[in-house]
Amino acid sequence: MPTCGSRKPVGCVILKRVRTLSIALLGMLALDFVAAAQPPPPPLMPWPASITFSPGAVPLDAKFTIGLSGVGAADPRVKAAALRTFDRLARQTGLPLLPRIVSPDHATLRIVVEARDHRPPQQLGDDEQYSLQVSEAAIRLTAGAPLGVLRGLETVLQLVRQNPAEAGATPGFSVPFVEIHDRPRFPWRGLSLDVSRHFIPVEGVKRTIDGLAAVKLNVLHWHLSDDQGFRVESRRYPRLQRLGSDGLFYTQADIRDVVAYARDRGVRVVPEFDVPGHASSWLPAYPSLGSRPGPFAIVHERGDPTGVLDPTKEATYRFLDAFFGEMAALFPDPYFHIGGDEVDPSEWNEQPRIVAFIKRHHLADGKALQGYFNARLEKILALHGKRMVGWDEILQPDLPKSIVIQSWRGQKSLADAARAGYRGLLSAGYYLDLMQPASQHYAVDPLQGETAGLSSEEQKRILGGEAAMWEELATAEDLDAKLWPRLAAIAERLWSPESVTGVASMYQRLEPINHWLEWLGLTQRSNLRLMRQRLAGVLPVAPLDAFAAILEPVKGYERHRGGYGSSMPLNHLVDAIPPESDAARDFNNAVDRYLAAPNPAGAEALRQQLAGWSRNLAPVRPMLLANSLLTEDLPVADEVAALCRAGTEALSYRTAAVPPDWKPRALAAVKDASKHYAGLLIPIAPAIQKLVDAVP
Amino acid sequence: MPTCGSRKPVGCVILKRVRTLSIALLGMLALDFVAAAQPPPPPLMPWPASITFSPGAVPLDAKFTIGLSGVGAADPRVKAAALRTFDRLARQTGLPLLPRIVSPDHATLRIVVEARDHRPPQQLGDDEQYSLQVSEAAIRLTAGAPLGVLRGLETVLQLVRQNPAEAGATPGFSVPFVEIHDRPRFPWRGLSLDVSRHFIPVEGVKRTIDGLAAVKLNVLHWHLSDDQGFRVESRRYPRLQRLGSDGLFYTQADIRDVVAYARDRGVRVVPEFDVPGHASSWLPAYPSLGSRPGPFAIVHERGDPTGVLDPTKEATYRFLDAFFGEMAALFPDPYFHIGGDEVDPSEWNEQPRIVAFIKRHHLADGKALQGYFNARLEKILALHGKRMVGWDEILQPDLPKSIVIQSWRGQKSLADAARAGYRGLLSAGYYLDLMQPASQHYAVDPLQGETAGLSSEEQKRILGGEAAMWEELATAEDLDAKLWPRLAAIAERLWSPESVTGVASMYQRLEPINHWLEWLGLTQRSNLRLMRQRLAGVLPVAPLDAFAAILEPVKGYERHRGGYGSSMPLNHLVDAIPPESDAARDFNNAVDRYLAAPNPAGAEALRQQLAGWSRNLAPVRPMLLANSLLTEDLPVADEVAALCRAGTEALSYRTAAVPPDWKPRALAAVKDASKHYAGLLIPIAPAIQKLVDAVP
Repeated sequence: MPTCGSRKPVGCVILKRVRTLSIALLGMLALDFVAAAQPPPPPLMPWPASITFSPGAVPLDAKFTIGLSGVGAADPRVKAAALRTFDRLARQTGLPLLPRIVSPDHATLRIVVEARDHRPPQQLGDDEQYSLQVSEAAIRLTAGAPLGVLRGLETVLQLVRQNPAEAGATPGFSVPFVEIHDRPRFPWRGLSLDVSRHFIPVEGVKRTIDGLAAVKLNVLHWHLSDDQGFRVESRRYPRLQRLGSDGLFYTQADIRDVVAYARDRGVRVVPEFDVPGHASSWLPAYPSLGSRPGPFAIVHERGDPTGVLDPTKEATYRFLDAFFGEMAALFPDPYFHIGGDEVDPSEWNEQPRIVAFIKRHHLADGKALQGYFNARLEKILALHGKRMVGWDEILQPDLPKSIVIQSWRGQKSLADAARAGYRGLLSAGYYLDLMQPASQHYAVDPLQGETAGLSSEEQKRILGGEAAMWEELATAEDLDAKLWPRLAAIAERLWSPESVTGVASMYQRLEPINHWLEWLGLTQRSNLRLMRQRLAGVLPVAPLDAFAAILEPVKGYERHRGGYGSSMPLNHLVDAIPPESDAARDFNNAVDRYLAAPNPAGAEALRQQLAGWSRNLAPVRPMLLANSLLTEDLPVADEVAALCRAGTEALSYRTAAVPPDWKPRALAAVKDASKHYAGLLIPIAPAIQKLVDAVP
Repeated sequence: MPTCGSRKPVGCVILKRVRTLSIALLGMLALDFVAAAQPPPPPLMPWPASITFSPGAVPLDAKFTIGLSGVGAADPRVKAAALRTFDRLARQTGLPLLPRIVSPDHATLRIVVEARDHRPPQQLGDDEQYSLQVSEAAIRLTAGAPLGVLRGLETVLQLVRQNPAEAGATPGFSVPFVEIHDRPRFPWRGLSLDVSRHFIPVEGVKRTIDGLAAVKLNVLHWHLSDDQGFRVESRRYPRLQRLGSDGLFYTQADIRDVVAYARDRGVRVVPEFDVPGHASSWLPAYPSLGSRPGPFAIVHERGDPTGVLDPTKEATYRFLDAFFGEMAALFPDPYFHIGGDEVDPSEWNEQPRIVAFIKRHHLADGKALQGYFNARLEKILALHGKRMVGWDEILQPDLPKSIVIQSWRGQKSLADAARAGYRGLLSAGYYLDLMQPASQHYAVDPLQGETAGLSSEEQKRILGGEAAMWEELATAEDLDAKLWPRLAAIAERLWSPESVTGVASMYQRLEPINHWLEWLGLTQRSNLRLMRQRLAGVLPVAPLDAFAAILEPVKGYERHRGGYGSSMPLNHLVDAIPPESDAARDFNNAVDRYLAAPNPAGAEALRQQLAGWSRNLAPVRPMLLANSLLTEDLPVADEVAALCRAGTEALSYRTAAVPPDWKPRALAAVKDASKHYAGLLIPIAPAIQKLVDAVP
């Protein structure tokens, strides 16, 4: 590979030490780059299957061009992606780029697409491999098919970096010399997005698709109906959206627009219509489809009565046949999700008519009745050319092996399905609405845990996974903040080799990736900032930002238990912060390092940090006292103050005499901080506890 | 007026002290609320003609509804504005609002529109008055015509505030009780937006229109052609955009879309096609229209040759007749801007053919030839039903009184025009690209200075003014930051009574208005943040933000003189900061207050501030050293350090003995700080100078 020296110096950046880092496909990728004493790797996410660095870089300037060649270059997705690349590169660099597609031999970025995809729409398993050679002459992206180009272009954009300021360096940007060969570990890598509990307008869905494509995810699983709203225009049954959506639904034109938008970005769209449970929003329009007598209403508040479709009526199947037929034409993907989760058996057991049907058909119970329903649906969907997907509960031995089981309850059901010959997707462990840290999702592997004992044949049935974002407690305003950047870590789990598991490296790359995603227009940081500004009212927002930086929303379903409903304003501080506090994680890591090897400088740094948070409460308290939406957070400020005090004292008591009653008091302060006022927790508490525990 | 007490307590906010503040139309509005010891007024901008506060507020919750009545309610602009209000209110409050338009008697917001506008399109002088009564029962907005509704709704949205946290206050938002009667001082209040030097895509233009409407401006003057680009699709002469735009132009569908969007928001769109100078981008397609022999090219770099249309050829008039005819149909506004500024006479004087024409037609010189050209254009436009608008230079005695003169050179030409019977618009003093502070624009009044001596008849000819944003050194990325919030201050000058001049009150309201504008999707803060993130590279951006907070771009044409061109990347620190530093203004005010009454607490506060800026240079310097685009800013960091040192020393030398050579050294440091490296100035320097000067 030519080195930088043989080229004119303009824009050519010579790395200070030669670093050729060849990493085999399933090799030693779990390297923790933070621990190694070398410059950090480029913030690629997902990390590629194989990557080799060389010294040097291809400079980027306003003359940047793209060349396209190969038979696959005729695919309209390739040219569209190239044109988007000019825009995105212009945003990332501030260069005034014009969209110049030129002869491949002279382009800065030379794309070769060896073949076309032969089947529209995009299929499960379509070729996504690509190779990238960045060397003196150009950036060369080669792919077997258009999808590989889309994946590779995201890698190119992630590689763009500002030139380091070194002697002879041109102010500006470049792409470092690198050779990458990359392909996904799993063919189905998605996000299940609930748009029923809170509606997400088309622009939010498109923004999400931009993000999915950016981190090489390839499925948008669109959860389009639930108790809280029916979100699609049916022309056959327009009462569905008229009575079931509060006016918040996608027109068929919207759907076509989103599907085309997703296809352009290499993302399949799999619709979900959840039946027979989670179906309250179907029933205001068609109460006769319900298991119990109506009337029915959309569920607006938690505790409102719900409705379940009646699997005993032929009319139900006629209706679903016609409706699914209409939707099958609207959604070109071969897979079609019927939900099937969480059916309340009392809805059936309390109806003598349904109990009689169960008996008459020799069905064991409600679960068997749902099996009967699923089997009929599978046949209906097959006639419409669709393969059925459903949540764990649909698994039953008499269904054909073409269906796909999506596991939300755990890996066991996925393993059971694979052993029974069914293909499956993992979602358990990837629920973004539970506010868990990226590291927790990152540790979940579709082929570890209970699936690890599967034969290799059975393991092949694990198609991948899907993150899930349920919208009970989120809206379009904070959707991005709930998805990003954590979804990028899940994307890496599903794309990168199994051996890519270093948490420190993941977090080191996650922060720049989070910023990089903002160039797409994602709002995970900007909208939370506006929401905090709203809370600050006329007071300066900076102290509230600093206070919020060490808070997190409570985890799991704790906040759900407080009650929720679609008319509840989600405009509190807990809504205006990211699920994971970077500042708290950094502090906790610093405490661990300090306790492993206590030293005065480390103690002083921790003390400074605690003093800063403590000092910041001075301007925060008047703000909490002044604004009606913030008063609920006053106890949290008290807890932060107590934690900072306990931590500071713990640091000083390593060298000073400890007052006899101090430790129980300090531990009580830590314990108090677990009270979770206003849905907030203070994630520096565990580190403070460690500091207190460490006092002799 | 009913008080809060007679209503159920939910959401009813009782102000602690009754504050009925009646301000007459031309009365004492210049009150400096900062000086007065009462709560700050709601951040309304422009400040209304008449406003009276009462204690209490109308609560806002998820049940918010709007009612429409009056014959004018049938105007589609009214319903569209009502629907937008639900969205905007939902964003401002975080309330999950559904768009519920209900019977006027039961609505939270009751809109009465007494009459329709009788003429589409929107006309200069259309009725914009409105009245707003917010009292116990509801928010009542009454207007004579649809435009008044649009203006009044912006006031309603500016009034929305978080409930103060007081006993019994509901967490949430409300609109305080108030009575407003409002109408504009001038009928023509606009922004001239250059989209030639750098192209602004449709979404940026629409975003700008959102902003204009939000601060009650009513004209988008769209500068569509200049030497650097011809930005409109002509179907009659498609070579214009094909050869004159680098592919960056608006289709006719785009134009119709923007015009309709603007009309919906009460904004007229006045197109400008600048002739006969600033016309280089017309000539690559039609070189025979040029005064000198071709070939011609788009001007990409400063110093590239320019071109001027040939006013001596009949073909020029035939061409313009046909082209203006096409454009007259596309732009419905009765006014049509022909530019007419800065014609280079050498383009004509060097062509014997043109010199002969001047002689043959008994014209005195090039200026007279331009007058001949303008007169012919005026007739052409009149035949297409348009009134001509042009920059100062078009003023000549033989043109009909229907034309409008836009003054960019100063108020004198505006006064001259008014005395000669012509109507005029002021733009001199409102050039946003010159990076001046809001206070400077705010001090410019169309009816003060040289126009103050006009008779009242002549003064009526001053229709208003237009801010101007020339895009030589700005792009779509930082457009919003160049416009906002300063444009809001100019909007107040053109709308509010002449007596509204308090600078402190203006700045006090400008900051919340700046945040309020962000709910529209304006990017004046978010994009600069992203640009600084880009500069910070992989390093944390916070220190760069703090460093940038006390910097400003150099003023006037100083940066232009360094050269510019459309291929120059505008991705430096100077591009990533607002034109005006709030932190520096606050510091300068604090220094003034301190020097007026020196005291230890004031000195300590100033010292802390300087110490903070100085300390922040520790993390800033490694960032400037690491990133190639930031190394140019190293001398600025040195200057900031020297200024902070000089200021700190000056504060201490008020109480300590002054070393003999200190003062000259300190003054030298202040002088050094005026060197403007990398296009940056350090606006705390004048205050430091004052501190140094004050040392005995």
